[in-house]
Amino acid sequence: MYSPTINNLIEALKKLPSVGEHTAERFIFHWLKSGKKEVTELMLALRELIEKVKSCEVCWDFSETSPCAICSNAKRDHTTICVVAGPQDLMVIEQTGIYKGVYHVLRELVDIGDDDSLQKIKIKELFERSKKSELTEIILALNPDMQGETTMLYLESELKKTNPKLKITRLARGLPLGADLRYADEMTLQSAIKNRMVK
Amino acid sequence: MYSPTINNLIEALKKLPSVGEHTAERFIFHWLKSGKKEVTELMLALRELIEKVKSCEVCWDFSETSPCAICSNAKRDHTTICVVAGPQDLMVIEQTGIYKGVYHVLRELVDIGDDDSLQKIKIKELFERSKKSELTEIILALNPDMQGETTMLYLESELKKTNPKLKITRLARGLPLGADLRYADEMTLQSAIKNRMVK
Repeated sequence: MYSPTINNLIEALKKLPSVGEHTAERFIFHWLKSGKKEVTELMLALRELIEKVKSCEVCWDFSETSPCAICSNAKRDHTTICVVAGPQDLMVIEQTGIYKGVYHVLRELVDIGDDDSLQKIKIKELFERSKKSELTEIILALNPDMQGETTMLYLESELKKTNPKLKITRLARGLPLGADLRYADEMTLQSAIKNRMVK
Repeated sequence: MYSPTINNLIEALKKLPSVGEHTAERFIFHWLKSGKKEVTELMLALRELIEKVKSCEVCWDFSETSPCAICSNAKRDHTTICVVAGPQDLMVIEQTGIYKGVYHVLRELVDIGDDDSLQKIKIKELFERSKKSELTEIILALNPDMQGETTMLYLESELKKTNPKLKITRLARGLPLGADLRYADEMTLQSAIKNRMVK
């Protein structure tokens, strides 16, 4: 067996997503070979993470300020909220440069197999925000997979109750750029025909 | 873009083997969601790693003592050295329970594309050990791939020069348990026929 110190670190690393025994071993022997400098840098970066990064208490993205840069930006359109699953999704939408509204980060999605999943989602906070009179639209931008669809269905029905005047939209479903009609699945193709665009 | 703190940590994590931008992001948002306790545990484990774990100055395995538990064990057979590429290989050989000798961890292998690779390998240290009169055998237990074979060929020729009386062996090549003759590669099968075992 490895020394207790190495085993401890293996256990700590195995908590990370998709890291198992062997990956943890590879990380550790990489650090042992690379020397103290790299480990010290990582420890400093981790300390900064827990000291500086917090939740924005408006949109629940992670940020060094609360409210975050987007929520406190008066130039953004605060009448539209785009609901995303996590900070990475927020980032890819920001990178398109086309969206000028604000966000709401759910952090988790509805999981039918987990009774507590509704507690973990920032859903109450979304309902609170949805009551604001200046709000006109909520875009549900979750992945069109099982968990995303379940969550969007739930949010749609609940949001209509809390604020019936709200326009609730979803990202368009259709053919991605460069797609081949013959390989598109039936649902996508049906949706692409139904929602065909006028040029 | 993410906040500077998160970008810093992404850069620090990307130095790990097989960790890219997206994996680093997933690690960080896992930590931000899991809370301070998990990150603090990891930081403590990392600190222990750099404070406690050092190189055994006999076999160059990583250990909390130098010499390590195996090198300082009088019950082990110190007339045989098994040469391995890394600590993980040492561990799998130990787990078979069949080897009673000592080890030598090379840390790196000969890389024809990298002129400095010979400097990084614990090869001078192996040659020093190979001169000891009590030594009778060196087992070269590197992977039978390109880098492993190159390193073994080099070690073989050099070790014969430093100590001509030494017996230098390699792990047997043959069919692994449960193998199918039809799917074995030619080299393996040739070797399995040539080195067939008397029952």
